Amino acid sequence: MLEELKRQVFEANMELPKRGLITYTWGNVSGIDRETGYFVIKPSGVDYEKMTVEDMVVLDLNGNKIEGRYKPSSDTPTHMELYKKYPEVGGIVHTHSSWATSFAQAGRGIPLYGTTHADYFLGSIPCARSLTSEEINGEYEKNTGLVIIETFEKEKRNPMHTPGVLCTNHGPFTWGKDAMEAVHNAVVLEEVAKMAFRTEMLNKDVKEAPDVIRDKHFNRKHGEGAYYGQDETR
Amino acid sequence: MLEELKRQVFEANMELPKRGLITYTWGNVSGIDRETGYFVIKPSGVDYEKMTVEDMVVLDLNGNKIEGRYKPSSDTPTHMELYKKYPEVGGIVHTHSSWATSFAQAGRGIPLYGTTHADYFLGSIPCARSLTSEEINGEYEKNTGLVIIETFEKEKRNPMHTPGVLCTNHGPFTWGKDAMEAVHNAVVLEEVAKMAFRTEMLNKDVKEAPDVIRDKHFNRKHGEGAYYGQDETR
Amino acid sequence: MLEELKRQVFEANMELPKRGLITYTWGNVSGIDRETGYFVIKPSGVDYEKMTVEDMVVLDLNGNKIEGRYKPSSDTPTHMELYKKYPEVGGIVHTHSSWATSFAQAGRGIPLYGTTHADYFLGSIPCARSLTSEEINGEYEKNTGLVIIETFEKEKRNPMHTPGVLCTNHGPFTWGKDAMEAVHNAVVLEEVAKMAFRTEMLNKDVKEAPDVIRDKHFNRKHGEGAYYGQDETR
Amino acid sequence: MLEELKRQVFEANMELPKRGLITYTWGNVSGIDRETGYFVIKPSGVDYEKMTVEDMVVLDLNGNKIEGRYKPSSDTPTHMELYKKYPEVGGIVHTHSSWATSFAQAGRGIPLYGTTHADYFLGSIPCARSLTSEEINGEYEKNTGLVIIETFEKEKRNPMHTPGVLCTNHGPFTWGKDAMEAVHNAVVLEEVAKMAFRTEMLNKDVKEAPDVIRDKHFNRKHGEGAYYGQDETR
Repeated sequence: MLEELKRQVFEANMELPKRGLITYTWGNVSGIDRETGYFVIKPSGVDYEKMTVEDMVVLDLNGNKIEGRYKPSSDTPTHMELYKKYPEVGGIVHTHSSWATSFAQAGRGIPLYGTTHADYFLGSIPCARSLTSEEINGEYEKNTGLVIIETFEKEKRNPMHTPGVLCTNHGPFTWGKDAMEAVHNAVVLEEVAKMAFRTEMLNKDVKEAPDVIRDKHFNRKHGEGAYYGQDETR
Repeated sequence: MLEELKRQVFEANMELPKRGLITYTWGNVSGIDRETGYFVIKPSGVDYEKMTVEDMVVLDLNGNKIEGRYKPSSDTPTHMELYKKYPEVGGIVHTHSSWATSFAQAGRGIPLYGTTHADYFLGSIPCARSLTSEEINGEYEKNTGLVIIETFEKEKRNPMHTPGVLCTNHGPFTWGKDAMEAVHNAVVLEEVAKMAFRTEMLNKDVKEAPDVIRDKHFNRKHGEGAYYGQDETR
Repeated sequence: MLEELKRQVFEANMELPKRGLITYTWGNVSGIDRETGYFVIKPSGVDYEKMTVEDMVVLDLNGNKIEGRYKPSSDTPTHMELYKKYPEVGGIVHTHSSWATSFAQAGRGIPLYGTTHADYFLGSIPCARSLTSEEINGEYEKNTGLVIIETFEKEKRNPMHTPGVLCTNHGPFTWGKDAMEAVHNAVVLEEVAKMAFRTEMLNKDVKEAPDVIRDKHFNRKHGEGAYYGQDETR
Repeated sequence: MLEELKRQVFEANMELPKRGLITYTWGNVSGIDRETGYFVIKPSGVDYEKMTVEDMVVLDLNGNKIEGRYKPSSDTPTHMELYKKYPEVGGIVHTHSSWATSFAQAGRGIPLYGTTHADYFLGSIPCARSLTSEEINGEYEKNTGLVIIETFEKEKRNPMHTPGVLCTNHGPFTWGKDAMEAVHNAVVLEEVAKMAFRTEMLNKDVKEAPDVIRDKHFNRKHGEGAYYGQDETR
């Protein structure tokens, strides 16, 4: 079942090593079919070099396995919370990509320093608060999802305008309208994190780019007035 | 029409991913035919992996499309202003290459710290001022071209002696006598930015290299007294 | 003899250049057969490009060569001390990988800043003290092994919970249940060192991650309650 | 003539792009035949992708071209001075490799922070003083050779124990008993520069490694008591 979605999720997973975002098995991608309410996710701890489409796991939003011979990614409950809360989200990615994870370990969000960032993220990329001991020792992966949601609700962020977040001491999650767009945003987040690091080293007093730059570039690529790219690809 | 120029511009565009200057579609190269006054530029938002010579777009210097099935790069008006102002310029490149963009995000030009820089750029690489809100909300890409020209005119710079610039909060533009030389200068600018960053980290009190070094190396490669390379390649 | 172990150790050695951990011949991997008490190690100074399974050297734990036409790695006595002291150790790796060696040269261990580290190392990765002049001018490589053991004994560390160490002014050693796991830990240590460096640059006042994060992630992958990966691969 | 030497020098030059030491044509390797007193060097400004063995240029130590259709590297007079002064030197390399050039631009030598450095260089790698305006405007490339020699003579350095130097605002030169060993030392110098940079960032108060470490490691690989590698390869 959901053969096309499984193929998409498999291919999106295979982008992670190709784009240099992961070491070994440190990442996972999922995608959801909103009609059935089922989502497809990478199996836990399986080598990318040996993984096939058939290894993808199908689950419902209560975490029941619908199809697949493997256990799903250990981060599955995080994906599930995000899918339940945000119906616009069609695909989710988690990695330990090096630059984004460094910001997460430093407990810092990524300031918006330029147009590369603004082309994809409308404002800084937030860093969710640390989980409490109770949250860690309880349903850890589910609570990771809940603290991401808490961050977005508290700051009144639209998750489709800020398609990514950092989790303190852990790493980034990104999402998009489907699995491949979520991976695309993971690549962008990593590149933006790298340039933000270097920007700060070059200018200790650097400020975020003006809002007018942020809005101009985001709207060049998104929404009604977008004029970047070809009409058929928007 | 302009089949040879289209091939050159296509090949120059394909150098960008090969040389590691771009992520996804974040860059564009153009080249101009001064006889007809037409220039050729990459289409907007088209994947490098799928792009062919036939996808190149031909325009006149008023921005009218002469040939091509795609919309041109959204940065076309920036290229156009530079071609109109500087008849020596035969090719232009824009990228978001990581090191150069980091300087741009930091709002800083690249000081001339050594002979690698001086072999190609006669002095520091300037950083154009931020655009005003009016300039951003108006004809943004055209105004980007105008602020580059303003920078060169104010500092009385010869654009062929300083074939590149950084735009604050954005990224680098480079140029040259043709599209491939413009890409060559984009590669050099990125390498020079990387080494300038590290130079400053190694010596907080570092000064620019003496003018005599700058002039010696620039003139070793350019102009009447040049003696680098083979005679036929000058 | 020990053909299967020789093949494993050879393949583990070949992972070092593949994973970008070594320049030229700056590294070595060994593996031990606990039944015979013999271990297999890379020959000294042999090019990775020319090395074959047959070039592996077999030794006993007194350092007597059992088989092989080459001299063993000059670091053999370090491996030997670790095998003698810790029967759980089945494979050992030494490299001069760039990030880990930079910490070693700085005389610093690697603080535990996040879950990537905690998935493999239960706490900071220690840096062994400098050897004395006597230790250096005496049995240097053996003494390198002894100072590693001293570090672990003094801090009451379980070497299987902290499968790696830095040697001041030198570089990292890692180990594992077999040669390939030791290489895996060398890759992780390098990645973790890189991210720790960047974390500190991003936040001068950063603290180590809370113990509850450390324990949660380590135990997600190790021991009775582990739930990462597939049952058959644990 | 000197076909074997030309092949060696060609292959040594081709190592530069393979090892990531150069961008475009920014580097050159030479090798000398001490019997005839002729040396072979890369032609100036020729693409590595198109270069063949036949393009190598043969010169005598007065700079007269003996064979070859191209002009030799513009840095030829620097190589010539070093060959004339130091009869032990059999091959010389110049690059603008990124980390070493950053130290040169910062006007700093590379401190000996660890065993990787000590395995090849007996002490810090010196940085030659800036040339005067007269030296730059006069016989620039020859004077570059002379200031390297001045540095080694003043510090009473044995060039075979410290087979490399940085030239202020310029970049590194390395050498060895033949062209390939000179390239090997260029690779090591770049790696050592990278790790020295990171070491200093990790520990602002770091000191050079003790002399006893320096001597132990250098002598493990060089001279009478060497015990690294196989006998036939020493």
